Amino acid sequence: MLFEYVDAVRQAAPLIHCITNPITANDCANILLACGASPIMAEHPAEAAEITTLCAGLSLNMGMPQQETLSSMLLAGRQANALSRPVVLDPVGIGASSLRREMGAALLSEVQFTAIKANVSELKALTEGSACAGGVDASESDAATPRSLPAIHALAKSLACDTRSTVIVTGAIDVITDGKRSFFCYNGHPMQTKITGCGCMLAVLIAAFLAASPDKAWEAAAAAVCAMGVCGELAHQQREEAHAGSASYRTFLIDQFYLLEKKTLEEAARFEIQ
Amino acid sequence: MLFEYVDAVRQAAPLIHCITNPITANDCANILLACGASPIMAEHPAEAAEITTLCAGLSLNMGMPQQETLSSMLLAGRQANALSRPVVLDPVGIGASSLRREMGAALLSEVQFTAIKANVSELKALTEGSACAGGVDASESDAATPRSLPAIHALAKSLACDTRSTVIVTGAIDVITDGKRSFFCYNGHPMQTKITGCGCMLAVLIAAFLAASPDKAWEAAAAAVCAMGVCGELAHQQREEAHAGSASYRTFLIDQFYLLEKKTLEEAARFEIQ
Amino acid sequence: MLFEYVDAVRQAAPLIHCITNPITANDCANILLACGASPIMAEHPAEAAEITTLCAGLSLNMGMPQQETLSSMLLAGRQANALSRPVVLDPVGIGASSLRREMGAALLSEVQFTAIKANVSELKALTEGSACAGGVDASESDAATPRSLPAIHALAKSLACDTRSTVIVTGAIDVITDGKRSFFCYNGHPMQTKITGCGCMLAVLIAAFLAASPDKAWEAAAAAVCAMGVCGELAHQQREEAHAGSASYRTFLIDQFYLLEKKTLEEAARFEIQ
Repeated sequence: MLFEYVDAVRQAAPLIHCITNPITANDCANILLACGASPIMAEHPAEAAEITTLCAGLSLNMGMPQQETLSSMLLAGRQANALSRPVVLDPVGIGASSLRREMGAALLSEVQFTAIKANVSELKALTEGSACAGGVDASESDAATPRSLPAIHALAKSLACDTRSTVIVTGAIDVITDGKRSFFCYNGHPMQTKITGCGCMLAVLIAAFLAASPDKAWEAAAAAVCAMGVCGELAHQQREEAHAGSASYRTFLIDQFYLLEKKTLEEAARFEIQ
Repeated sequence: MLFEYVDAVRQAAPLIHCITNPITANDCANILLACGASPIMAEHPAEAAEITTLCAGLSLNMGMPQQETLSSMLLAGRQANALSRPVVLDPVGIGASSLRREMGAALLSEVQFTAIKANVSELKALTEGSACAGGVDASESDAATPRSLPAIHALAKSLACDTRSTVIVTGAIDVITDGKRSFFCYNGHPMQTKITGCGCMLAVLIAAFLAASPDKAWEAAAAAVCAMGVCGELAHQQREEAHAGSASYRTFLIDQFYLLEKKTLEEAARFEIQ
Repeated sequence: MLFEYVDAVRQAAPLIHCITNPITANDCANILLACGASPIMAEHPAEAAEITTLCAGLSLNMGMPQQETLSSMLLAGRQANALSRPVVLDPVGIGASSLRREMGAALLSEVQFTAIKANVSELKALTEGSACAGGVDASESDAATPRSLPAIHALAKSLACDTRSTVIVTGAIDVITDGKRSFFCYNGHPMQTKITGCGCMLAVLIAAFLAASPDKAWEAAAAAVCAMGVCGELAHQQREEAHAGSASYRTFLIDQFYLLEKKTLEEAARFEIQ
């Protein structure tokens, strides 16, 4: 079931417009290519909407806002909405500054997102207006554990209903919900927090998966999350066997996405549906 | 014959001013260092021309235009012309938006380029004004195959004559022409399209090769293209032996440029001159 | 003695605000994670000071100034001063343009830096106003050799006294001085000059080390420099054994920081204190 969404990306080879931060833009471009999609990064307001028009999906990442970021994102987001193309929001560090909270509010009020991907700290900032003291990573007290899961799940469902989006909350257990159906993914590895860009890469992957399976947003987002988690585990095994460190882990993670096979994904996937 | 241009870069260690996109800037800097040159990225209009003055060559890449990109490129390009330093244009995705078409037109009218490197879609946009629907990568119908080669060659020669530049068209077969002499390079590997930045890296390499052999633009550009193609093939062999994916391929590609030896290049180079 | 500062970073996991260039931002983020710290990059003037408030340390890198870079750096730097958080300056290519010289002068007059990390060319530009003709890398004539060391040491001490900062001068021999005590580090490998970002990575590491040991700026900076040098040597051994090139070296270098153990560091460290 999951692999069909991986395969759909390889078949459709969707072009994804990314308005993103310069820190992880290279990783985002490379993981899109590794999964069979193609990236284009363009954020000048004079071309943002025109580039969106060429693309099968759009991903907006708030990881390092610059002067023109919000206006470009609004132009691109509205155009994607007008053309019924999927739009993903990655509200990186949304609780970390007034600028990001205001940018997030403006985006959520003017763009209909198909999916919103957040860590638990970002989810709380999105739903409670609570400030996040830990920068762009989820704070320790915000880890998704079996004990905290019901509360996180309730917040995620509430955000999904309010925004009419598929909400993806990442953590030790990932939650993917459209407000009615929820997918809990147990894959992934803590090494993913030891490199920059795993969250950013997941957001653009979700955009590619949605672009290739536009009528199945919840399923496609769940498949992207599960595939990333499985690749995260395989990369960890590879890193251990090679006695390598965190930079090798980044390389192995993208490699695993390039090499991912149906059997591997379906045997390694661990999830529950509610 | 080809290796002397590789060697000239290692001897001269030219400093190359790159005004480029943030997605592949790191790869561009690292391949310049790998080939024996040095990078400096600077795009503030207040320093663009001054930095060009320090450098042996200039590379302008349109991969992600920002507010000040065009003015910086014009300042740097005019300064390079005034000092008779080689200037390379990489008109990334020039058919993808009005902004890029206008930027390309302004650059071509105000700067004398020593070399223009484009994929087939970009070549068509440059010569026919045809819009490119495939983002920054060449569209499938634009692949350089033996059948489509004569038409591509004719367009490349026409662009070379119109712009008085050496034109490099990348594809399964690469064409390097100054309008009179044409070099066809058969090296390279499809894996190069599975990572971001191969085109960007080639453009800065060409700038380094031209800077080290300024009186031999056509030969030096051909050597850069051939060397990149050979490294692309060697990296593919290495990737297959390691059962690795696309991120490893990027690492191997830059490694191969660092390790490239005369014998390897001259035995593996496959080309024709017309 | 040195390892306690490495360990302090792993225990404190300081969040480091980086205002830096897009070329090496990814490497900077990944080496911060590899050493046990966390990065946040934020440079919009509307959030710069607010992000600094969340962070345990600040690193300012002049590698590619953009329109708003100076105002963001001033806002963040003053806020770090107000909160008594360590601030590191990496005056990349400060001799290369008027813009960079003016930016450096403005930063030094308005922000109290805890540490300033420079190569010898940058040190000379900072102390003599001498223009640097070699871009962002130290020019050959500026290599720190046993013969040139006394003069370099004198300049470094003078800068440390003038700025009341710990000054770190990188080269074949690294000098770390607060004007009274000087630490000479003999670790490191020339391969570090064959990849982009080693200087940038060292600056953010110093910020993390200072943030974790705020009362021991000189010792912590020396430990960061020594650890980087040792990792540079280990990565070189690994590269040689793998017959690999410069891109692999980058990966190995960050890996070694992730894997660094007490015994390894303390056995390999080669330094003198004056």
